[in-house]
Amino acid sequence: MPPVISVVGRPHCGKTTLLEKLIPEFDRRGCRVGVIKHHVHRFDMDRPGKDTWRLKQAGARVVALSSPSGLGVIRDTEGDTPIGELVARSFADVDVVFTEGYKQAAMPKIEVYRRAVHPEPLTADSTWIAMVSEDRLAGDLPQFSPADAAGLTDFLVDRFLSPAPRTAINLLVDGEAVPLNRFAGTFLRQTVAAMIGSLKGCDQAGEIILRITSHDE
Amino acid sequence: MPPVISVVGRPHCGKTTLLEKLIPEFDRRGCRVGVIKHHVHRFDMDRPGKDTWRLKQAGARVVALSSPSGLGVIRDTEGDTPIGELVARSFADVDVVFTEGYKQAAMPKIEVYRRAVHPEPLTADSTWIAMVSEDRLAGDLPQFSPADAAGLTDFLVDRFLSPAPRTAINLLVDGEAVPLNRFAGTFLRQTVAAMIGSLKGCDQAGEIILRITSHDE
Repeated sequence: MPPVISVVGRPHCGKTTLLEKLIPEFDRRGCRVGVIKHHVHRFDMDRPGKDTWRLKQAGARVVALSSPSGLGVIRDTEGDTPIGELVARSFADVDVVFTEGYKQAAMPKIEVYRRAVHPEPLTADSTWIAMVSEDRLAGDLPQFSPADAAGLTDFLVDRFLSPAPRTAINLLVDGEAVPLNRFAGTFLRQTVAAMIGSLKGCDQAGEIILRITSHDE
Repeated sequence: MPPVISVVGRPHCGKTTLLEKLIPEFDRRGCRVGVIKHHVHRFDMDRPGKDTWRLKQAGARVVALSSPSGLGVIRDTEGDTPIGELVARSFADVDVVFTEGYKQAAMPKIEVYRRAVHPEPLTADSTWIAMVSEDRLAGDLPQFSPADAAGLTDFLVDRFLSPAPRTAINLLVDGEAVPLNRFAGTFLRQTVAAMIGSLKGCDQAGEIILRITSHDE
């Protein structure tokens, strides 16, 4: 799974603007970035009047727009999608994921702060790893200017994108990522890969995705 | 996997309008509908100016908007996403999937036709299952009026949504759905479920999703 880093801060302090600067910096270093934005208001991602928008309005639970250059999928949900599930399902092919919002979650956090917007930063806890602000701040956290996207990117790459190989097996059970120790991971991976490798046309499998539900055949 | 039915026809003959009528009819019968629209032009699903749109413009490969009522994920792709992969990844939780476009694919097809738009329907092959038109058409295919969404829905429910139980195991290898015969499916499902059921906290697993890549740990 890619590392997940949360950008937090009060409204209108520049979270999206910071991400707009970080993404090209990561790109320049060969790192593919994914972003998850948390949204508490009415969900409105598609363009009104477009066919996919009309079909969603008509009651489709999931609509996809598929083209040679892009894929968009919009679905109804009952409650928030757990961040671990979302990353495992949709972000396995990027190198780092930033989230905007998700103040409460346990991910490492960068706070963007502007004194002009609010007299005080948020209450930092042990998940805070850096502050981004033009104002001089108290405390021991590393601080970056909003203009220093390159410096912040170096800091994050060094901390989260070490050359350690990525895990080759991911397991989701009922939507929750299940951590696997080295033995269980290797055992499961080798056993399943061996079974599937014996199926016709699957002996050179690069990526295997298996979904099993508890309903009997 | 849910059945996939393709709605085809020349441009401006009423494909989206027909789907807008079919979706509530399926809904009324307790069937959840998903729709996939194929699009050959520039991909533009999000709303210009929105944060997710800005972050995609800045170069994010995948952006998600997650709310308590909906989830949208937009990603870059290199080439078209195979329909089987898209259905397996994103439509496993609906009862039927309609596609708009995909004239060449092997799915069963409904053609929407209007003589006012074009003198002839498309060239039907063995995948054609029905025509939707106000014009009187030659040929043996069942024909429905565009106003008779209820009649067409009954026809489709009867043909594709029989009470046979859904397959409990889906396998994707390198993006392609791999058909499993009864033995291979049961063997794989029972073996993997047993291994994962022995992991801490996984003994009551309802849904298992396992992803394995060929890179070594």
